[in-house]
Amino acid sequence: MKKLLILAMALTLSGLVNAQQALFERIPVISPEINADNTVTFRLRAPKAVRVEVRGDFLPEGQRSAAMTETEGVWTYTTPVLPSELYSYSFIVDGLRMMDPANVFMIRDVATVTNEFIIPGNPGDLYSIKDVPHGTVARRWYNSPGLKEQRRMTIYTPPGYEQSRDTYPVFYLLHGSGGDEEAWIALGRTAQILDNLIAQGKAKPMIVVMPIGHTQNNAAPYETSRDYLPAMGGGRREAVAGMEETFGDIMTFIEANYRVKKGKANRAIAGLSMGGMHTAAISAMYPGTFDYVGVFSAPPIQSMRTMGNNDAAAQYAEEFVKKLETQKAQGYKLYWIACGTTDFLMDGVKASMAKMDEIGFPYVYRESGEGHIWKNWRIYLSEFAPMLFK
Amino acid sequence: MKKLLILAMALTLSGLVNAQQALFERIPVISPEINADNTVTFRLRAPKAVRVEVRGDFLPEGQRSAAMTETEGVWTYTTPVLPSELYSYSFIVDGLRMMDPANVFMIRDVATVTNEFIIPGNPGDLYSIKDVPHGTVARRWYNSPGLKEQRRMTIYTPPGYEQSRDTYPVFYLLHGSGGDEEAWIALGRTAQILDNLIAQGKAKPMIVVMPIGHTQNNAAPYETSRDYLPAMGGGRREAVAGMEETFGDIMTFIEANYRVKKGKANRAIAGLSMGGMHTAAISAMYPGTFDYVGVFSAPPIQSMRTMGNNDAAAQYAEEFVKKLETQKAQGYKLYWIACGTTDFLMDGVKASMAKMDEIGFPYVYRESGEGHIWKNWRIYLSEFAPMLFK
Repeated sequence: MKKLLILAMALTLSGLVNAQQALFERIPVISPEINADNTVTFRLRAPKAVRVEVRGDFLPEGQRSAAMTETEGVWTYTTPVLPSELYSYSFIVDGLRMMDPANVFMIRDVATVTNEFIIPGNPGDLYSIKDVPHGTVARRWYNSPGLKEQRRMTIYTPPGYEQSRDTYPVFYLLHGSGGDEEAWIALGRTAQILDNLIAQGKAKPMIVVMPIGHTQNNAAPYETSRDYLPAMGGGRREAVAGMEETFGDIMTFIEANYRVKKGKANRAIAGLSMGGMHTAAISAMYPGTFDYVGVFSAPPIQSMRTMGNNDAAAQYAEEFVKKLETQKAQGYKLYWIACGTTDFLMDGVKASMAKMDEIGFPYVYRESGEGHIWKNWRIYLSEFAPMLFK
Repeated sequence: MKKLLILAMALTLSGLVNAQQALFERIPVISPEINADNTVTFRLRAPKAVRVEVRGDFLPEGQRSAAMTETEGVWTYTTPVLPSELYSYSFIVDGLRMMDPANVFMIRDVATVTNEFIIPGNPGDLYSIKDVPHGTVARRWYNSPGLKEQRRMTIYTPPGYEQSRDTYPVFYLLHGSGGDEEAWIALGRTAQILDNLIAQGKAKPMIVVMPIGHTQNNAAPYETSRDYLPAMGGGRREAVAGMEETFGDIMTFIEANYRVKKGKANRAIAGLSMGGMHTAAISAMYPGTFDYVGVFSAPPIQSMRTMGNNDAAAQYAEEFVKKLETQKAQGYKLYWIACGTTDFLMDGVKASMAKMDEIGFPYVYRESGEGHIWKNWRIYLSEFAPMLFK
């Protein structure tokens, strides 16, 4: 079989499509095809299947899948006109969930891989690889004395960084409980968003640092089978120390190894969900360090550590409010809290903001539609990045 | 459901495992578990499934899957003792192929994603993230005048590159027809192999450059839905020029943008399958440029372009032999041809070597077991890299 596949590949490459057809009695299908009117056609060659469906977040709310129809062994479904967005989908073939074999654009979210496509327009174009100068995305290891080991992070350097002698501001961007140091670059489309915003003159060239927030896990969990249980962030070992306590190791490494502008005016930090709580905690632990703080879909005055324990949570909040007083006294330019109307953490976000109001802690609140989803986090990043370092 | 998951995650993180158990009536399963005796236990919680199997390349040849057995809703299978290797697997649940939800270590090969695990020992340790200094892996864009567009490549810089002022030799490493610029870093484990060989003093610190060899495709096909049909290398557009003709753009970029040692003594090139043919063609097109040439699982005197056309292939071979004469005259240190005994391209490899013998073109032949598989290409890389730049 492998022999036939490789032969077929060779024939395809040599342009002998007729020979390939004769060999396989098929022509390759194009899927997904994004049509000129922003409908999308999915295709799957499955001559023996009885029922084929497509499932994805392009479907109306409440509809689990759409039935595909078969002609000469190829199953097809064309969507209605879709609004611009990054969408995920997969096929269900006689009950079997499978990838689209004609689409290598796929993204892992925790332990599930789905195919992706982008409908052009706004915001889809912002998430796409466009013909603009591109930054570099590096996976780089650093030593963490706090965790007594080497850790890895994902680092975006803006277009021209390598050729330049300039210094750059730094934006630390933290993932949620169901992620790792790949989350923001994959589902978050950070490189595309920054490339495009910088090209449009809407965001300043900046370094974006995406570390791994699960100190109980080794870094690069998706390249090893060690110590990682992907049930939304569980780990197989005990954490030596938390993200908050060891974040200094990350800043120390970045400031020693990159051409960065120093001072709080040149540092931003933001995160989603668990990363939003980390962001609030870190920016409060290091008052006067960040002029820009973004808390996405998370209650700032709440910790993962005290969830499910009301007494501990109340004590955490009480102590945290004191830290906020200090953070306020030291000053910052923007404390941006964003949450979706249907987010299950909304009550906590509102309670945090009420406490902030009590002490006159300035923040900007951005409320979006929908809930705890990547669509919102990409929007928040797209809105937050242009406000930085101005 | 998302709400429950996040809550569960929060509870897990806060250590309230009992609360989580009460919520879900389950405990997390560990899978795969690599036992002390190098047997491996797979586990899947699927209380409603009727039949669960595990499929993977750890099974004896000819066995498609192994049945798992169920106790209290958790399906289990333990392998016999396995030799050290990097293995792939997936689960089949009532006929449905699925990932192991407890294992985020997964690799894409063309359009198929499988879970991975590594059995320690030799060669498994070489493919693993060990506690040694780590190089950096960057995805970086360059301008290709030959292809009239920006292209992306994957670049490994060795541990210490960033801090050093030294210059380094460069190894160009090319993927096969079913790959892209991710293939060598993912299935090929290039970063781990180089990190470990360098730490052991077996390989010199070097820069490894992994470009995309399909000029008919855009770069980064797995991050976009443009122009890529993954049927073993097909593209959706016509190629402006081939990999061979535009390889100079890659070398020009690398030599201008990295601290490289110049001259043929400091340049190596190798590739697998289609990349092996590219390697032979490029090293012949640029005689006196590479002292080290590695052709893995490919006939050097053969081109993808003339496959399926005997007359054109014969003419290509005749012209290529003349180029080999020039390459021989210009000199090189090592021309290494590696192939597996059951490789379907073996006949072509032998025919190429016969022609080389006729003209007294020196090469070293390495024959391994098995065929056209990543297991062999990892072994070839592990053997080839230590011979470079000595």
